[in-house]
Amino acid sequence: MKQGITSKSQDYNKWYTDVITKAELADYGPVKGTMVIRPYGYEIWERLKESFDKRFKETGHQNAYFPLFIPKSFLAKEAEHVEGFAKECAVVTHSRLKNNDDKTDLIVDPESKLQEEIIVRPTSETVIWSMYKKWIHSYRDLPLLINQWANVVRWEMRTRLFLRTSEFLWQEGHTAHETAEEAIEETKKMLNIYKQVVENQMAIPVLTGTKSESEKFAGAEETYCIEAMMGDKKALQAGTSHYLGQNFSKAFDVKYQTRDNKEKFVYATSWGVSTRLIGALIMVHGDDKGLRLPPNIAPIQVVVIPVINKQFNENDFEDYIEAMLKAFNQSKIRFYVDRRKQYSSGFKYNEWEMKGVPIRIEIGPRDISNGKAIIVSRDTGKKEVVEIESLSNIIYEKLQNVQNNLYKQAKKFMHDNTFEVSDYEEFKEKIDKGGFVKCGWDGSAETESKIKDQTKATIRCILSLINDASIKCVLSEKPAKYEVIFSKAY
Amino acid sequence: MKQGITSKSQDYNKWYTDVITKAELADYGPVKGTMVIRPYGYEIWERLKESFDKRFKETGHQNAYFPLFIPKSFLAKEAEHVEGFAKECAVVTHSRLKNNDDKTDLIVDPESKLQEEIIVRPTSETVIWSMYKKWIHSYRDLPLLINQWANVVRWEMRTRLFLRTSEFLWQEGHTAHETAEEAIEETKKMLNIYKQVVENQMAIPVLTGTKSESEKFAGAEETYCIEAMMGDKKALQAGTSHYLGQNFSKAFDVKYQTRDNKEKFVYATSWGVSTRLIGALIMVHGDDKGLRLPPNIAPIQVVVIPVINKQFNENDFEDYIEAMLKAFNQSKIRFYVDRRKQYSSGFKYNEWEMKGVPIRIEIGPRDISNGKAIIVSRDTGKKEVVEIESLSNIIYEKLQNVQNNLYKQAKKFMHDNTFEVSDYEEFKEKIDKGGFVKCGWDGSAETESKIKDQTKATIRCILSLINDASIKCVLSEKPAKYEVIFSKAY
Repeated sequence: MKQGITSKSQDYNKWYTDVITKAELADYGPVKGTMVIRPYGYEIWERLKESFDKRFKETGHQNAYFPLFIPKSFLAKEAEHVEGFAKECAVVTHSRLKNNDDKTDLIVDPESKLQEEIIVRPTSETVIWSMYKKWIHSYRDLPLLINQWANVVRWEMRTRLFLRTSEFLWQEGHTAHETAEEAIEETKKMLNIYKQVVENQMAIPVLTGTKSESEKFAGAEETYCIEAMMGDKKALQAGTSHYLGQNFSKAFDVKYQTRDNKEKFVYATSWGVSTRLIGALIMVHGDDKGLRLPPNIAPIQVVVIPVINKQFNENDFEDYIEAMLKAFNQSKIRFYVDRRKQYSSGFKYNEWEMKGVPIRIEIGPRDISNGKAIIVSRDTGKKEVVEIESLSNIIYEKLQNVQNNLYKQAKKFMHDNTFEVSDYEEFKEKIDKGGFVKCGWDGSAETESKIKDQTKATIRCILSLINDASIKCVLSEKPAKYEVIFSKAY
Repeated sequence: MKQGITSKSQDYNKWYTDVITKAELADYGPVKGTMVIRPYGYEIWERLKESFDKRFKETGHQNAYFPLFIPKSFLAKEAEHVEGFAKECAVVTHSRLKNNDDKTDLIVDPESKLQEEIIVRPTSETVIWSMYKKWIHSYRDLPLLINQWANVVRWEMRTRLFLRTSEFLWQEGHTAHETAEEAIEETKKMLNIYKQVVENQMAIPVLTGTKSESEKFAGAEETYCIEAMMGDKKALQAGTSHYLGQNFSKAFDVKYQTRDNKEKFVYATSWGVSTRLIGALIMVHGDDKGLRLPPNIAPIQVVVIPVINKQFNENDFEDYIEAMLKAFNQSKIRFYVDRRKQYSSGFKYNEWEMKGVPIRIEIGPRDISNGKAIIVSRDTGKKEVVEIESLSNIIYEKLQNVQNNLYKQAKKFMHDNTFEVSDYEEFKEKIDKGGFVKCGWDGSAETESKIKDQTKATIRCILSLINDASIKCVLSEKPAKYEVIFSKAY
């Protein structure tokens, strides 16, 4: 925190990396494309996990753990799936190292070559469906509602911390159902849980909809998504929920005995969110001073900083805050008193602003004399002098205000940067300036790909089917089939 | 649960695997050596994680996440470490698959060969110390107390669910300190946390001590361990805590500026427990009816089973248990009412005994008339008729009794099967029969290895230094340096 950070307007990408580094959220790992999630970043992930996991369990899901390693042949069983993942996977080919002949180097022992190469899971549909084949026999075994918290690997050459790394952490739900209707209902239910957590806990407003054929998950019938707008007006896919139909049950031959004693392939869903959400958190709320964390998931909600000057007396300070800290403890406020001696108060203000702590309380000798404290909200930077005795009563409300305000700001930003356009010229102009463009699309892959080539914008989500023939496709001007959101995206 | 299981006395190994399979704790994965942890097994792991994690955090540790992938060259940096792990590691050599020329098969794309091969972490000392080099500069950065929950891979050809699998889940703590004393204190503190959780939550009594040179962690100065006795009288290493001295700080050049402005290598520890603990849980408490779970970590503490006969009326039953369930909910008892219609009461008794649920409550029409219920404890099998109204008051005590009794039984078993011997003949006889032998050891690797060759017993832990010259080594009959426990082990 010794130096400042690049401003958002000057270089958004550099600002993003600076915030991550200075706030000590993450760091680059030694192997290209890998990331280390540092304790402060990991604690945010733990709070997110807790929020999601609670809701998964409340809706009847159980956690399990499936192997990291997948036989190469499994990947090939579902045609689209292999297309989607074969080009970016880590392949294990050997199981031993040894010294070279003159013992100067460690080499891969050629004799340890595996008979069949192994893939490090990019996602677990194949290995999970190979197990479901063993576990599912009858309608009594359904629905099977399993989730896993795990690491996955997709080979990436262009690293971007939290957004694009070779390995990332996520959860992946995999469910099996008797009917298509039930599976589709599950797909939507989980999307709704994603929306709830991302909006209510992370204070990030999202759009929901489905993906076009070219953007959907490799192996899905339909991909539902939540999309959010980042601070540079680009879109980020924040979570996806897939209706897989019978694609994987057919690929892995998973049939069940129906209630009327017939055999039928089961219907499937899968759904996931990842550490990428932390990238969204930074980009949606961050400012030129660093992170701004929503209180609901902030590792530290309130930081208390003694204002050190000649009149400062450590014992007085400790006595003064004792009752307040006790009350904070009782109401489970996550607070930290920054008593470090080697840093100035000003240095500490900057550091905790960088780390995005929602509320700062400053207490100096004069405040102690007057029975006061100064509280500063990270979302607005506003200072307020309050009675020390009232603090424990108002702190919850103050935190709630920050939570609500961050959401409101983000919602307004998305709204102000979402445009409806009358023709393709205006479309290009808006996309070029940045933001979401809401418009008609004729539903053809050709139109979609032309727009992508010309503007770099993709369909982020399909909002609805259009029944009104007067609405035209923004490019082809044919009658639009869908109302969609186009945007540049991460 | 349709068939029974092999009895312990008939074939202990088969009994072990049968329990895991029938209680649905785990299953074999498709790649040799891999394991699937099923929801019931995973929930036990979640409870264990929670118990450990809470204590790690209370003692000032923070969680983080380091990459799965380690450059091959890192492993070679610490000489003993590479010796210990090079022979059993998964090596990633390529990053892409492609279709073969006639498109009949998926092959590894030779053009995607990596410049430097990557190791899937068998443990994370090397990657973590490469990061600590970036993060540690001054005594102000110390102690650094980080833990990670992760999967690790050690290539195994002989699979044994939970005990020996290629991939397993664990936590690994990695700390850095200013002085050797502080690091040793940390090593012991974490061992003590392991002992607390394993004894108090899992009801498994353990011995604590240090490992001999041949059994210690590859790269450690000293390995502390907790050892438990399984139901077949073999030992299982249940957790280890290593004092690493300056071995890794020197290998990765991690120096800090001392309080008196000098440069010094930091001192390190690492410590871990894994899903292997679930294997211990099964083997310590299980019987011929299946699992017996200590209430503190049982996913379901109480199962309520309606006794169905001609007089049974569903509404009466629901009315009758309503107040009890409400009270259970309030006191956070984890219960399950087995209302399934397709199974008989007897079938359900067997199933929940197999799954090790500590307390079963049976309620039939006659109980409903009389205001009674039958409760059955899984540890003893004893049945007791109680007033339904008293149940919510006594249930906590009943659960506590099961918890205590399981611990007492296991403690007595270990005690009854730990022997002191007067000479090597008696030693061999006792080892052959099974159990722990407590005896003197001269401290030489030669003696240790001779005993291992002749009896398959190894030193499980060194209990203490011996200052009494009259105590002799059990084999060499030289004056003993240490009092140790020998046993066959998993």
